[in-house]
Amino acid sequence: MKLSEKGELSLLEAIRSKFPTRSKTVITGIGDDAAVLKPDLLVTTDMMLEGVHFDLRLITPFQLGFKLISVNVSDIYAMGGRPSFILLGIAVPGRTEDAFIQRFFDGVKAAIRLYKLSLVGGDVSSSKKDMVVSATLLGYAKKPIGRSGAKPGDRIYVTGNLGDSACGLELLKKINRQVEFDKPLNSPLRWNVMKPLLKKHLMPQAVNPGKFAKAATAMIDLSDGLFIDLTRLCIESNVGAKIYKSRIPVSNSMKTASAFLGLDPFRLAVAGGEDYELLFTAPPRKRPGAICIGEITESGMLVVDEYGAEKPFAPEGYQHFKLKK
Amino acid sequence: MKLSEKGELSLLEAIRSKFPTRSKTVITGIGDDAAVLKPDLLVTTDMMLEGVHFDLRLITPFQLGFKLISVNVSDIYAMGGRPSFILLGIAVPGRTEDAFIQRFFDGVKAAIRLYKLSLVGGDVSSSKKDMVVSATLLGYAKKPIGRSGAKPGDRIYVTGNLGDSACGLELLKKINRQVEFDKPLNSPLRWNVMKPLLKKHLMPQAVNPGKFAKAATAMIDLSDGLFIDLTRLCIESNVGAKIYKSRIPVSNSMKTASAFLGLDPFRLAVAGGEDYELLFTAPPRKRPGAICIGEITESGMLVVDEYGAEKPFAPEGYQHFKLKK
Repeated sequence: MKLSEKGELSLLEAIRSKFPTRSKTVITGIGDDAAVLKPDLLVTTDMMLEGVHFDLRLITPFQLGFKLISVNVSDIYAMGGRPSFILLGIAVPGRTEDAFIQRFFDGVKAAIRLYKLSLVGGDVSSSKKDMVVSATLLGYAKKPIGRSGAKPGDRIYVTGNLGDSACGLELLKKINRQVEFDKPLNSPLRWNVMKPLLKKHLMPQAVNPGKFAKAATAMIDLSDGLFIDLTRLCIESNVGAKIYKSRIPVSNSMKTASAFLGLDPFRLAVAGGEDYELLFTAPPRKRPGAICIGEITESGMLVVDEYGAEKPFAPEGYQHFKLKK
Repeated sequence: MKLSEKGELSLLEAIRSKFPTRSKTVITGIGDDAAVLKPDLLVTTDMMLEGVHFDLRLITPFQLGFKLISVNVSDIYAMGGRPSFILLGIAVPGRTEDAFIQRFFDGVKAAIRLYKLSLVGGDVSSSKKDMVVSATLLGYAKKPIGRSGAKPGDRIYVTGNLGDSACGLELLKKINRQVEFDKPLNSPLRWNVMKPLLKKHLMPQAVNPGKFAKAATAMIDLSDGLFIDLTRLCIESNVGAKIYKSRIPVSNSMKTASAFLGLDPFRLAVAGGEDYELLFTAPPRKRPGAICIGEITESGMLVVDEYGAEKPFAPEGYQHFKLKK
């Protein structure tokens, strides 16, 4: 069977079953935002490929460097952790200009300062045609927050607006070139509508779990979309979920821009991906200071529409190797 | 300037100067086989790209999985460390057969058992055309052995024959298809000459530093070739080196096969790369049980030929972005 028929989730399941985690020093292995190692060490890794994860006609090398770090920091934050050491891998074709690499590392450096990380190593090599970057981030958490702690009755929270990044990507595809945030674009849409959406897509900032960490029973970062990431959390916790369409937070900019683009803002919010907001659950008595969008149930994945009708939802969002419908 | 004109070493230097390691918790940052983190934690990462680092017409997925792990273990061993946790990144095109991935992970599993590692996480994604794999390995060392501790007067040691892997690669290019070690090939060269060379290239085994670690003042693994890797060690230690051509250990298989191929066995041994033997230095009074090939000097990189003539040598070997001569 080809991977395009099998899908990413079932591939991951097959790999996971081949490598049972027996070591006493591994607390959480494959299947969470980051692995938890003895005694409170977290580690996560991400690879980004040109032509799959990014398009160098649409993202500047500075933005790419910044985004690569943010995406990894988000995984450590999603474990309630403090990111600390980062290693980079980068492969570029020999024709790449030195200045391009310098700007990429300037973006890395800006993010490293923002998140207070140390770059401790990596691997530079040549590629045949496309650029590949990877990062491995180590962090610490005294009490790691996994995906498996959600209990029926817990409330479901998100930390910010959803769909901005996906909407920003759709705008960027129309603009069809790199965007610099200090150079407003002329467009029928106002710059102050477009800019936050483009920025959320091109230079996302990971959300520090600080104030939510105490209340959270389970946590994941929204990298592939609310529906699929909530499904992942529920599978690991062996629970269901009910969310309310009317409570999903969306920005005015996203509503304006999605109307302009002729896109459904709800679809962007629930299946768009790359928001890098945190999704977490907390007991009903807690007030964690985030946006409550629903509650954990015994089983089933349901969305309640504005008329009170309940419908099951599928884990839609970004999946590698998933057949396009 | 394009990277193909700049070369890998100067690119690494530029990156290193952009990221001064200020943190008190980072003992060794960029520029060694692995980074040393608080208190005795080691971490290393490596990326391998189809068409650059491997050719799927010549290596089986099982061998590739095994080799990816060995290459990373070699970096931890080269710090005098004990490898422990591994994370994998893999990107493959959607047309890839599920069975291919399973065999790749069977190779990973064989290596993980050999080196007693735990696979704790990773990242699976799709690629446009070529396969990309990466690994990050964490390990521990109470007394990490870096590249910077060599002193004038120290002896220079290697742990085994050099050039077998490079010779194996040249054989493989002639064979021009995948090789299975339980299926001897018909060839003018005997299978028991070819097999160890092919195996050293396709399924290298990292050398455990156990018995050498106590004596070693500096250590590196031979991944890119003796000349370039010894130069790296000497730069970090701010010393020179003198090695003796007659003492460089080469196998009889390699001598036979290189004669058959019309290649210079000495060039294969000093500039071939991918041997994954350890290169280390130790004070003259020590007897570390490895092969002494020369000594550390104040400065200069010299090779002494069979007639006693000294000649400087250049850091030849595998460098990404280096112009071919």
